[in-house]
Amino acid sequence: MSSSSQAENGVVHRHRVSPWPALSMDEAIASIQSAMPEGTCKFIPATLAKPGHVLVSRVAARSNVPEYHTSVKDGYAVIAADPSPTRRVVGVQVAAPTYPEATPLQLGECIRVCTGSILPPGADAVVMVENTVLLQHNGTEEEVIELKIGVEKGQDVRPPGADIREGETLLEAGTVLGPAEIGLLASNARRDVEVYRRPRVCVMSTGNELLDCTMDEQLAPGQVRDSNRPQLMALFQSRGFKPIDAGIIPDNRESLGEGIRMALRYSSVLVTTGGVSMGEKDLMKDVLEKDLRFKIHFGRVWMKPGLPATFATGILDDIPCAVFALPGNPVSSFVCAELFAVPALRKMAGYLKPHHTIIKVTLTNSLKLDARPEYVRAILRDPSAVSSSSTSDNSATVFLPSAFTTGHQCSSRLLSMAGANLLLRLPARSVDCTALPAGTVVDALVVGAL
Amino acid sequence: MSSSSQAENGVVHRHRVSPWPALSMDEAIASIQSAMPEGTCKFIPATLAKPGHVLVSRVAARSNVPEYHTSVKDGYAVIAADPSPTRRVVGVQVAAPTYPEATPLQLGECIRVCTGSILPPGADAVVMVENTVLLQHNGTEEEVIELKIGVEKGQDVRPPGADIREGETLLEAGTVLGPAEIGLLASNARRDVEVYRRPRVCVMSTGNELLDCTMDEQLAPGQVRDSNRPQLMALFQSRGFKPIDAGIIPDNRESLGEGIRMALRYSSVLVTTGGVSMGEKDLMKDVLEKDLRFKIHFGRVWMKPGLPATFATGILDDIPCAVFALPGNPVSSFVCAELFAVPALRKMAGYLKPHHTIIKVTLTNSLKLDARPEYVRAILRDPSAVSSSSTSDNSATVFLPSAFTTGHQCSSRLLSMAGANLLLRLPARSVDCTALPAGTVVDALVVGAL
Repeated sequence: MSSSSQAENGVVHRHRVSPWPALSMDEAIASIQSAMPEGTCKFIPATLAKPGHVLVSRVAARSNVPEYHTSVKDGYAVIAADPSPTRRVVGVQVAAPTYPEATPLQLGECIRVCTGSILPPGADAVVMVENTVLLQHNGTEEEVIELKIGVEKGQDVRPPGADIREGETLLEAGTVLGPAEIGLLASNARRDVEVYRRPRVCVMSTGNELLDCTMDEQLAPGQVRDSNRPQLMALFQSRGFKPIDAGIIPDNRESLGEGIRMALRYSSVLVTTGGVSMGEKDLMKDVLEKDLRFKIHFGRVWMKPGLPATFATGILDDIPCAVFALPGNPVSSFVCAELFAVPALRKMAGYLKPHHTIIKVTLTNSLKLDARPEYVRAILRDPSAVSSSSTSDNSATVFLPSAFTTGHQCSSRLLSMAGANLLLRLPARSVDCTALPAGTVVDALVVGAL
Repeated sequence: MSSSSQAENGVVHRHRVSPWPALSMDEAIASIQSAMPEGTCKFIPATLAKPGHVLVSRVAARSNVPEYHTSVKDGYAVIAADPSPTRRVVGVQVAAPTYPEATPLQLGECIRVCTGSILPPGADAVVMVENTVLLQHNGTEEEVIELKIGVEKGQDVRPPGADIREGETLLEAGTVLGPAEIGLLASNARRDVEVYRRPRVCVMSTGNELLDCTMDEQLAPGQVRDSNRPQLMALFQSRGFKPIDAGIIPDNRESLGEGIRMALRYSSVLVTTGGVSMGEKDLMKDVLEKDLRFKIHFGRVWMKPGLPATFATGILDDIPCAVFALPGNPVSSFVCAELFAVPALRKMAGYLKPHHTIIKVTLTNSLKLDARPEYVRAILRDPSAVSSSSTSDNSATVFLPSAFTTGHQCSSRLLSMAGANLLLRLPARSVDCTALPAGTVVDALVVGAL
């Protein structure tokens, strides 16, 4: 079928100008956020929760922390109202309780305690050891101490629930778990927590000219090593998702259709590169729309790099699927994967804020504007150096971090991505404004560790 | 031996004020950076390089990218100097070369090309399909096109080496690999690259009062669930290191000494929590110094939270080892692991900049200062919202992101870490300055995704 329709369409009847309207970035992003399949949820033991998991529902504290009045310091548990400047050391309460509960502390007495010790009955304050003098001992045990400071009731004591109250919200629904949140779950003895499954995502390269980069062959003329797959796999992995390698598919409708069907058996999200532009081998949109009967939400986006970026959804084997068909140029595919696929996957993973954080930076060099809004790769200049320039006259931007761009921004030049942790969001060129001078303040998407 | 020395020291002869001088943060960090064991290196296949690996040496490009003159667009390869407004389509050159090399392009001719096609011999420019009109065809093949625009030599052609030149530095020594760098290595067909081994780090909790958090038992009075281990394991894992669980060790010298020896067989870096303060069960410093004959570089640091943080190095089985013995309070251990252990591990992993990035933020609320410099947990307020406040009178800080603190900063209150992506570095209190008002600009260490 597809061969005949290919012949029917033929090169002579092809579109010479793209029939796809170019959506604005806002339209493209809104379309993705509304059309992406929903994420799914599961219960896991709290001890198996990992950084990057997102909570489906609020987690409440199962018990007070601490559960008892607890010493904050190494020192002596005392009665605050006791007027005596000296105290007899009548026992020891290390972290685990050893002091007989039946004997409450009396005036003139104290109990040696450690940080975390439960306060002995009768005691209502702690004096840290640094603020005491040992007056008398029998060679092995302390007998009498002197307090060097006054004592207030509750001093250096944590009452029950001081840190966390039973029933209090420990973690809100939608919390992205990090190390601190995992510590909180552990301290609270949660048995199970409900989290969103972290989406898997298939990564496929398309093109007859591609050679798998694990092959150690010389390139034949016209061949290109496929760097897009390892790059996008690493991108998705470093963002906390599970990439699946869907290989290289040659440029013909049968292979592409079969490859996409196969990939979408392993994951409901597929990211492809290549085959979306105006070339006669650019069959991806036709395969998605005509062969797989997917809905193409957009086939072009008015931005750079990545004008022909395509997003489609459909149903395969009763499962809602999404395909991001990105341009084959290494930089375009990388930037578009970051801008379109990463937020889409984050939404499936339960992120309440799936989009990149945007910070304000000043340009260190002037930049020409393109006809399209452009995402320029840049590196945040060490912001701790900024304070030394605080003698600058222009106090308006003294503290603002600056960004320098990563050289020539040609979309095939992967070197322009190296080291970049920002994507500067430049506006489209206008009659009034064709370039931004150095020092201009622009929005920057944070795409790497700062 | 250790029992007898324990008896000799006895509680009555203990220090009532810490004998350890409190180093400044700068001194502590300098001491770590000079005393940490060196990282080790290994060669790995480039295809196994992962985000977080650091290059030991510079990687040079093995070949030009592209290797040939290559079309940047879908369109027609032409002779720029050809005056004819129309061209006969004499062949097709899709990405893989099919045009016979022996027949150079002649005046009046063109060859249909795709993005990435090698330029046919004789051609020196490309006209994109959008700028052409099909004048004549035979029903299946294009025969004559008209060019709607003028042509310049080199137009839409990438010459050899345009993106990357053979021998050019692809990645500098010390580069931390991310997805883009992994793409670059793949595109360049590197067989092997030399990287630093990512350090393993053992994580141990100490204390008789601790219950393993995987146990589903009720806490006995005085018992505490050990949240430090899962928390620090998750911290190190999320920073790209390999944590090893060294369990819970009870508070006695034999167990501690044996536990540390055992852990350091698995990794040359150990992070422990608990047992470093002034309590009578705080044996860690003694065990390290007297039993294991390690050198304690510092036993206190003048900062908060984490005053008794301890760093020691020594030799076990001829291997240089380092121990970070951190306070047992969950927040202190977490902050100290971030401030001391993470940069130390990063240095071993080859990072040229092992320390946290520091940004400037304004305080949204006033903060009291402590006698010690304090690291306050805070969350960066959505910086993209800042632009909407650009009508503010105070233009000096219009663009500066702000940070709000995570509630009560008690060192046992792990909830104060939840969601934090910044550690605000507050100065120590002075006679002149006891608090910082809202709006003050402070340094903030970036400790989480922004």
